Amino acid sequence: MKDDRKKDAQFQLSRRGLLLGAAAGTVGAAVPGMPAQAATADPEDVIDLTGEYPFYGKAEQAGIRTPPQRYTFYMTFDLTTQSRMDLQVLLARWSAAISQLMKGKPVGQIEPARPDAIGFDTGEALNLSPACLTVTVGLGPNVFSDTYGLAGSKPPLLRELKQLPSDAFKPELTGGDLSLQACADDPQVAYHAVRDLARVAKSTGAAATRWTVMGFGRASAGKGQSTPRNLLGFKDGTRNIREDADFDRSVWVKDGPSWQDHGTYQVVRKIQMHIEAWDTDRISDQNAVFGRHKLSGAPLTGTHEFDTPDFHKKDAGGDLVIPATAHIRLAAFENNEGLRILRRSYNYTDGINQYGALDAGLLFISYQSDPAHFERLQTKLGAADRLNEYITHIGSAIFFVPPAPQEGSYIAAQMFADG
Amino acid sequence: MKDDRKKDAQFQLSRRGLLLGAAAGTVGAAVPGMPAQAATADPEDVIDLTGEYPFYGKAEQAGIRTPPQRYTFYMTFDLTTQSRMDLQVLLARWSAAISQLMKGKPVGQIEPARPDAIGFDTGEALNLSPACLTVTVGLGPNVFSDTYGLAGSKPPLLRELKQLPSDAFKPELTGGDLSLQACADDPQVAYHAVRDLARVAKSTGAAATRWTVMGFGRASAGKGQSTPRNLLGFKDGTRNIREDADFDRSVWVKDGPSWQDHGTYQVVRKIQMHIEAWDTDRISDQNAVFGRHKLSGAPLTGTHEFDTPDFHKKDAGGDLVIPATAHIRLAAFENNEGLRILRRSYNYTDGINQYGALDAGLLFISYQSDPAHFERLQTKLGAADRLNEYITHIGSAIFFVPPAPQEGSYIAAQMFADG
Repeated sequence: MKDDRKKDAQFQLSRRGLLLGAAAGTVGAAVPGMPAQAATADPEDVIDLTGEYPFYGKAEQAGIRTPPQRYTFYMTFDLTTQSRMDLQVLLARWSAAISQLMKGKPVGQIEPARPDAIGFDTGEALNLSPACLTVTVGLGPNVFSDTYGLAGSKPPLLRELKQLPSDAFKPELTGGDLSLQACADDPQVAYHAVRDLARVAKSTGAAATRWTVMGFGRASAGKGQSTPRNLLGFKDGTRNIREDADFDRSVWVKDGPSWQDHGTYQVVRKIQMHIEAWDTDRISDQNAVFGRHKLSGAPLTGTHEFDTPDFHKKDAGGDLVIPATAHIRLAAFENNEGLRILRRSYNYTDGINQYGALDAGLLFISYQSDPAHFERLQTKLGAADRLNEYITHIGSAIFFVPPAPQEGSYIAAQMFADG
Repeated sequence: MKDDRKKDAQFQLSRRGLLLGAAAGTVGAAVPGMPAQAATADPEDVIDLTGEYPFYGKAEQAGIRTPPQRYTFYMTFDLTTQSRMDLQVLLARWSAAISQLMKGKPVGQIEPARPDAIGFDTGEALNLSPACLTVTVGLGPNVFSDTYGLAGSKPPLLRELKQLPSDAFKPELTGGDLSLQACADDPQVAYHAVRDLARVAKSTGAAATRWTVMGFGRASAGKGQSTPRNLLGFKDGTRNIREDADFDRSVWVKDGPSWQDHGTYQVVRKIQMHIEAWDTDRISDQNAVFGRHKLSGAPLTGTHEFDTPDFHKKDAGGDLVIPATAHIRLAAFENNEGLRILRRSYNYTDGINQYGALDAGLLFISYQSDPAHFERLQTKLGAADRLNEYITHIGSAIFFVPPAPQEGSYIAAQMFADG
């Protein structure tokens, strides 16, 4: 597939020198027209697009525990059919397509044998590597209804979220009966996946697009990843879930039928950040809002990012060093009976708003064993968090994310047998 | 700056193995939790974020001849001052800030010495490498007016574009007195640059944001780069300008005062692509619209991407193999008296429109020695190109891009001496 690359010996050599230089920690040779290279070797300074994850045969779907890739396209869909069979066909066709996409392959032929046929794949990811693509499928509350004969298969804790103090939703950014979270280290690969899966949905007549967000610059860390920054300039995800035992305790569902094992509940919020207002705030105040130092990411009671916050420590004047209204105090598991949720968020921008201000924020995605966990944390944050002055929750949805299918089967196939 | 990275020996080792594997063309070792690696080594499968370009001391600004990076944030601004001095201060402050940003540095201290001060930099690109960032500054027609005493410095060919057959502009996506084209291999780096430069503009009171587009998955190739695909699934930029002689002939301005040498005219168009309609078109027809094979990128008269199109060749029935209305025929320099423009375009998406359809397209950016060259090509394309059925030009602007400043000076400083 790469035979059509333009040959340019100087370029290829210099790129190779550059790569080996970066990997070995040496300074790349200066080549005219090529950028200068830094001497430091940081694994996160090199993105390898050949990485590939399997779709079939794992316990849980990829895209949850997977170290967050750099980009996401997240999209929700409305079911446009009353037919159980249509839903079944859609999930089966989506599964077959996703398994191809995650290998870096098109969903079908670009140029079918019949020259007057329509291509099965839209083609913009042709010749691109898999780029660690994962596509994670979610099922909204309406899926588990009498309409589809699936009321009996409902995951025990799935329901619409309660109204929370932070809610200021735009109706066009809420809900959905199905969700796709496509993440990859190349946004063109992620966009292509969602586009072609939306096309499959349309062609079956079973579902139509509802709302979408493109996320860039992952804003949550997974295991082995450095902590990225959100658009408020602070590190996000320092205390995220990373260990298997914590996934078992806090992420995977319990008490469901066995086909739901390694399923989880996905909560997504589009959180607008008033970044221009934030940018006029003093650094000392920004630090107090988060309870961390902006520069180092250390808690206000520590000196390094991963120092454990001391929520009891007081300053000479008797005031708490990490203020009572600080974000990390309110969200900390120590202050919430051990309650933790997995965050897998991305930054987004919608450009410039009608008033000429930069319109940007956070596509917050969390995974938890019970939607009530998110609600409890967000109730507390929505009531007391000083960050509220700078953020607005404008979009929201909830889904059950079933486990991964086995090869030869498809997402949530068992519920049609059970239901 | 990297001392705060979480240590994880297995991850670091596996990433390094992976990088060396990719660079040396070997298969990466299978490590639990890490993605599988492909056996092929393709230079464009590895993105090195340490690359850095200089801002000062070159003939032309970076971001024109520079091999296109993977992402752009493009933004235009309105001047909000009548003061020549304000404009001068803004261009000087932008230049100083850009020179820092292109080195991967913040525009100023994050945590100033005085703890109750406001940070000079918004912080979200802290710890990130330069990622080949370039920021290219453009000056719109209104800059060269009596208001600023600059009418005498006007680049000879700078003017508003004529109305063209393809125009269907949204007023909020047109014009601007200044432009910033920030390109990088990390979108968070590009976004941070534009955000902090917009903040500088606001703080001087000299300029306010006008319109912006975030582009991903570069859709034009530069020298030594493989040809990427636009969102119609076709390779874009196969016949782009690559050689120095062609830059001299077609990109850099002529006949201006010496301070404008290695300046150029930038035309930007936001081109909506009706991708869902396109996706229902037969492949044979799509190929005829472009005059190329979708899969290989070869002209319909050839078998490889870089085969020279034969615009005279006819099939057995006497019809032109590359149709009279094919995009490559209408745009080819052979059919336009040798006229060529440098294209430096990016794909974009605006999510889902009000009718539930995918809203996406091309941020078309071209550089040429004369805006009339763009007009001549676009007049021809707008009148006859079969692609028109699937695209709409919804945004437009034009700028003069002055040459790069010398160290110690700033963008377009000489026009204030001349004017």
